[in-house]
Amino acid sequence: MKNEHSNFDRRQFIRKSSLVALGTSSLFALPNTTMAYPQTTQDEINIIGPKKGFSPQIGTLVSMMDWMRMVILHPVKEMSIEDLDYLVDDRANSIGAMLWHLAATERFYQIHTFEGKNWGDWSEEDKLKWSTASALGEEARKVIKGNDINFYLKKLKDVRDVTLKEFAKRDDKWLMTVDKEWPWGPTNNYCKWFHVCEHESNHNGQFKFIKSRLPSENK
Amino acid sequence: MKNEHSNFDRRQFIRKSSLVALGTSSLFALPNTTMAYPQTTQDEINIIGPKKGFSPQIGTLVSMMDWMRMVILHPVKEMSIEDLDYLVDDRANSIGAMLWHLAATERFYQIHTFEGKNWGDWSEEDKLKWSTASALGEEARKVIKGNDINFYLKKLKDVRDVTLKEFAKRDDKWLMTVDKEWPWGPTNNYCKWFHVCEHESNHNGQFKFIKSRLPSENK
Repeated sequence: MKNEHSNFDRRQFIRKSSLVALGTSSLFALPNTTMAYPQTTQDEINIIGPKKGFSPQIGTLVSMMDWMRMVILHPVKEMSIEDLDYLVDDRANSIGAMLWHLAATERFYQIHTFEGKNWGDWSEEDKLKWSTASALGEEARKVIKGNDINFYLKKLKDVRDVTLKEFAKRDDKWLMTVDKEWPWGPTNNYCKWFHVCEHESNHNGQFKFIKSRLPSENK
Repeated sequence: MKNEHSNFDRRQFIRKSSLVALGTSSLFALPNTTMAYPQTTQDEINIIGPKKGFSPQIGTLVSMMDWMRMVILHPVKEMSIEDLDYLVDDRANSIGAMLWHLAATERFYQIHTFEGKNWGDWSEEDKLKWSTASALGEEARKVIKGNDINFYLKKLKDVRDVTLKEFAKRDDKWLMTVDKEWPWGPTNNYCKWFHVCEHESNHNGQFKFIKSRLPSENK
């Protein structure tokens, strides 16, 4: 539900009339646009909050996901294949495998929340593309190696492009929809997608642990 | 800006009238309450979104921080002093030190965003209580040990109680306020506090790495 109006006009209007009831006014596509602050473009990376092109809470989530992705990629962008394949010990995962794992996790949550599939009910194609990275461990240690950073960046970007496209079609009512059957207990889409976001930070903690122990960082 | 009305009445009203313009209606304290979903109590842990007692976006942030805290504490709650002090190698941090570090980070962001102090402009008392944990590394390895889990849980809880008390006094306009001088570039309070939240997940990734390597897990 994209806003057709210029970003500039909208910001001026919202700043001046933050308490005006807007409801079903045709000037704004969304019912929740009584926000007293402007929606920002995705380039304002350290501004968390509603973003142009998305409903308010979805936009806020997008701003968090944008920020998180920027943070985790920053230290790995220049890594060599050796760095990306490095295993700190025989039970560890490599940074490369974990980057693929982040894309896999996001892909599975796409299928589950956008298509309504039960967890694990993936097509053969999706299983082939994502299962090893999703599981990590021994199989991943064996097969995920020899790829440069662009290999992983492309997977992350391609999956994220789909997420954003699907988010732009949905609204905050969808985001707040509760799944009563989810194993954590009643869980809304916002929680599932917040998990996708924080999950990147979780692995970033492991990237940092590995990075300081890389042979290339300790010459 | 607490909502005086009962949670039940409010949910019914919002469900039935999600597209009604509410604006300056006296029924709702906040301009941003045209949300088409109810504010939930903090007990609905897997429901991310506005929470009773907070403005909508602050409440959403609180729900994320509650969820994140629940997730990171789950695997450490039963840990022994030995587990909490375990160092995987000589440049690692212990889980105990990192739990204290999480409380320290939150405390510093409290002083900075609630009191408007520049980063680092802490009282002597706060420096004494939090600086070693904040910095981690060699000093923390030397001095942060021999404490049981309750020692760290208390620090985390006491700091969090202050955060929630201060959040409850503020509104979404405060949350969206941009700090143009922040070293990351123009950054709003939401971004700073989102960082406090995801920072816990970052260290949780390290907790998981350590946990699977604990002597107590590998007997």
